[in-house]
Amino acid sequence: MERAPRVVAFDVIGTVFSLDVLRERLTAAEVPDHALELWFSRSLRDLFALAAAGVHRPFREVLDGNLAVVLDRFGGKRDEAARAHILDGFAALQAHADAGEAFRRLAAAGVRIVALTNGAGPTTETLLKRAGLLDLVEHVVSIDDVGIAKPRREVYHHAAQLAVVPVEDMALVAAHPWDVNGAAEAGLMTAYVARREPYPAFFRKPDVTAPDLDAAVAALIRTGG
Amino acid sequence: MERAPRVVAFDVIGTVFSLDVLRERLTAAEVPDHALELWFSRSLRDLFALAAAGVHRPFREVLDGNLAVVLDRFGGKRDEAARAHILDGFAALQAHADAGEAFRRLAAAGVRIVALTNGAGPTTETLLKRAGLLDLVEHVVSIDDVGIAKPRREVYHHAAQLAVVPVEDMALVAAHPWDVNGAAEAGLMTAYVARREPYPAFFRKPDVTAPDLDAAVAALIRTGG
Repeated sequence: MERAPRVVAFDVIGTVFSLDVLRERLTAAEVPDHALELWFSRSLRDLFALAAAGVHRPFREVLDGNLAVVLDRFGGKRDEAARAHILDGFAALQAHADAGEAFRRLAAAGVRIVALTNGAGPTTETLLKRAGLLDLVEHVVSIDDVGIAKPRREVYHHAAQLAVVPVEDMALVAAHPWDVNGAAEAGLMTAYVARREPYPAFFRKPDVTAPDLDAAVAALIRTGG
Repeated sequence: MERAPRVVAFDVIGTVFSLDVLRERLTAAEVPDHALELWFSRSLRDLFALAAAGVHRPFREVLDGNLAVVLDRFGGKRDEAARAHILDGFAALQAHADAGEAFRRLAAAGVRIVALTNGAGPTTETLLKRAGLLDLVEHVVSIDDVGIAKPRREVYHHAAQLAVVPVEDMALVAAHPWDVNGAAEAGLMTAYVARREPYPAFFRKPDVTAPDLDAAVAALIRTGG
């Protein structure tokens, strides 16, 4: 990476917004804390299997099918109302504490911001609005707009086209190694937010690794300076 | 599905062979029983993310990276020797009790058999040989031969080309919904072995659903009869 990005795309679920609300709702449905990770891993596995086969389904459908399995596996409450309450938690996620700082740092540096999510567009706009971040975001891009999920390269390329910049002038910030790898394969600069896990060796290395959103953004801008 | 398949492709890990050996080795490494599913879901998630991005890595690399995370998460023994012992369990898997019956039923009906795995070719041959099944298998096809993982359609098409049949004359038998869906998207007939979980609604429906390997094979042949 030789210069600063002109546009920074943020992954949304788990990167800008914390999953804690979902964890709390799972616990309230009487499943253990670690069920969140199994639910998410399974759901992403199936979403990516669809993407690898060239097929798209809304992420909520995939999450719902896997939630039923996970609640069943760990003996949780599994009626439709319990499942709907948990899924509705995606519209109630809280932004990480430094998200506003990171977004404002980019705006001050003249770097444009897009949101690039495997979630639904309207839900993402609601989340960003409630967190006071929507005014700083130029585009909210959902996989439902593209017709295929990240990490297919079409998604990253679509975001760059919307922002009218070459892919190499765009960076992705994500807390998910699979997303960083996909963006790198698609030609973007990348920043990995290392909140909980080391970055695996079988994926392409990020240009920047940082402990939180604001440090990731600062490093992206500094590299170009 | 209007006629019987001329060739049946079997998924290997978890379909023809049980994962119990891995479960035992994880338990011996002092992690809870359910860690197996998290390890596998995460590893497939990452393998499919690579496939969606058009990239290939041997499955063992992806499994190894995720094993370290899972052992760490659940406080298990995590030194390199412990990890290697668990990974070597893939070469020690036991065939499901009815695998021989299913394979012989196909052979008796004049239906040819291939093995189609996300695992490594040499390991798969060793497993089949030890289980007394290798003589009944015409080809062992690994994703390492194709350069991309299932459920990318290239893999299923490669198997049909090797067997010199049109894809619609080949069936896939698998205990994994993502594999059944991928094969269906690629144009194959499909049989789902429903050992533990219901088939999710967001994937394409299998032609046949059966509780075990032999029932799946019997239904595939009967449909065509």
